[in-house]
Amino acid sequence: MGKADWIAADWGAKHLRLWAMRDADVVAARESDQGAADLTQDQFAQVLAQETADWRAGDWVEAPVVACGEVGGRQGWVEAPYSLVPTKAQGPLIQVRGQRVWIACGMRQEDPSDVMRGEETQIAGLLAARPKFDGVVCLLGAQSKWARISAEELCHFQSFMTAELYAFLTQQSALAPSLATQSEALDEVAFDRAVEEALAQPHRAYGRLFQLRAGELLGAMTAKAAASRLSGLLIGWELASAKPYWLGEEVVLIGAPEQMRRYARALTAQGVTTREADAQAVMLAGLHRAWKSLASTA
Amino acid sequence: MGKADWIAADWGAKHLRLWAMRDADVVAARESDQGAADLTQDQFAQVLAQETADWRAGDWVEAPVVACGEVGGRQGWVEAPYSLVPTKAQGPLIQVRGQRVWIACGMRQEDPSDVMRGEETQIAGLLAARPKFDGVVCLLGAQSKWARISAEELCHFQSFMTAELYAFLTQQSALAPSLATQSEALDEVAFDRAVEEALAQPHRAYGRLFQLRAGELLGAMTAKAAASRLSGLLIGWELASAKPYWLGEEVVLIGAPEQMRRYARALTAQGVTTREADAQAVMLAGLHRAWKSLASTA
Repeated sequence: MGKADWIAADWGAKHLRLWAMRDADVVAARESDQGAADLTQDQFAQVLAQETADWRAGDWVEAPVVACGEVGGRQGWVEAPYSLVPTKAQGPLIQVRGQRVWIACGMRQEDPSDVMRGEETQIAGLLAARPKFDGVVCLLGAQSKWARISAEELCHFQSFMTAELYAFLTQQSALAPSLATQSEALDEVAFDRAVEEALAQPHRAYGRLFQLRAGELLGAMTAKAAASRLSGLLIGWELASAKPYWLGEEVVLIGAPEQMRRYARALTAQGVTTREADAQAVMLAGLHRAWKSLASTA
Repeated sequence: MGKADWIAADWGAKHLRLWAMRDADVVAARESDQGAADLTQDQFAQVLAQETADWRAGDWVEAPVVACGEVGGRQGWVEAPYSLVPTKAQGPLIQVRGQRVWIACGMRQEDPSDVMRGEETQIAGLLAARPKFDGVVCLLGAQSKWARISAEELCHFQSFMTAELYAFLTQQSALAPSLATQSEALDEVAFDRAVEEALAQPHRAYGRLFQLRAGELLGAMTAKAAASRLSGLLIGWELASAKPYWLGEEVVLIGAPEQMRRYARALTAQGVTTREADAQAVMLAGLHRAWKSLASTA
């Protein structure tokens, strides 16, 4: 491996992704499941040292680390304060005492209460490529975040628990034995109809969850259709609640390919134009921008 | 322990409750976490033999067992078929081959698809005490079931996943660190307001879940208020969807005391009169009725 200038870290509650970087280019990458939620405060330095030990050879032993995500949360390594929206998506960086490690600040909103850590760096990465972007971004992770960007600022945002609920319901709940999620193949008819139902009658969606178990048990639907229908009900439910964000707007989706495909499908059916941005690319662009701001003030 | 005539078993997905009975009276009781969901088909006989070994002494070694719940499900001991509603809540009993064990049939509904196992026996127990009951019952367990009873029949019903979702969200989800559930003390103001909000704007309730995490993190609400608010949002959401069941009706609640208290509080605020029935008492009354039907045909 060649010389690198700095190390980028996406350190969320449940994952750690590291990239050895030369300016904006990736020299090496690795990931682990040592998320911030599972570490005590004194374990962060050790985990980082272990994971980057073989990278820290030769003449870049002192390469700084620029991180974002729950590593800066209340249960993280160092609490990096939230910036209050509306504000620039790229807030200040907080240095970990005694370490060449800097952590990006998260964003908070007062009314209604909301917070993000990590997604602000992806938004900053999107704005690095498109400085004049004015519109709506939907960031898809364990929680999805809808954000309005205008005049180079993050104006307001709202979080939904869709992917986390989907994972629980398909893996652990009473529905699980009736849902087939091994294959990513979507039953598109079942998905589309469920999105439509949840959007049209969101007050009834809650009572439709257990029908997936019963419908599959009684032979009224396949386990594949039941899983697709659950996905559609949850995404439709989210869209019903997030309507002020997407109605009449073009939406930029940032997430994993299969997640983006489903949201794009649901939004397109509502007449909304979507664009997709690569989640890792915007994350790295945001961390790169943070690293450059650090280099320019150092 | 004196002589008993029969053994009553409430054998659900996650629990096994056993009672040694002399006619309608409890002689001894025990419970374990050996639920039907965690057993393979060949383990049921062994578990039952072990759990009742010390009861099966003297002259009632042959006491029959009458059971209900997921023990009769597809992943249970023997699949007891569902009876199709509308029908009498007490369906036929299915004998386990080579055992003096009988399992109650569950109930199914075709449109919309729904199923129950165990709750039909509680309804039968309620009807044993009140044969002319005509009205609405809400049975509170991991899933809650709303059921309409008329002319001594179970007419139709609907299941909700409220308690299961509440357990996941408070114990495992991203909200968990911000929710205080150690004490059962309810923040009544936060609960009442959340019920009201979810009932008035059920399409917005979905987007309010993550606000509980953010609100507590930002100091806008206590962890106790956040947990009470979550409980209120979920129960309010269920009530919004189940409105055709309770509007203008008197509702009989069957469940654990704290669950019944919260549903009664939410329904009372909507002008609904509620009555509470002891969950174990109606379960035993239903199993007793099943045992008597068995004895009369034997």
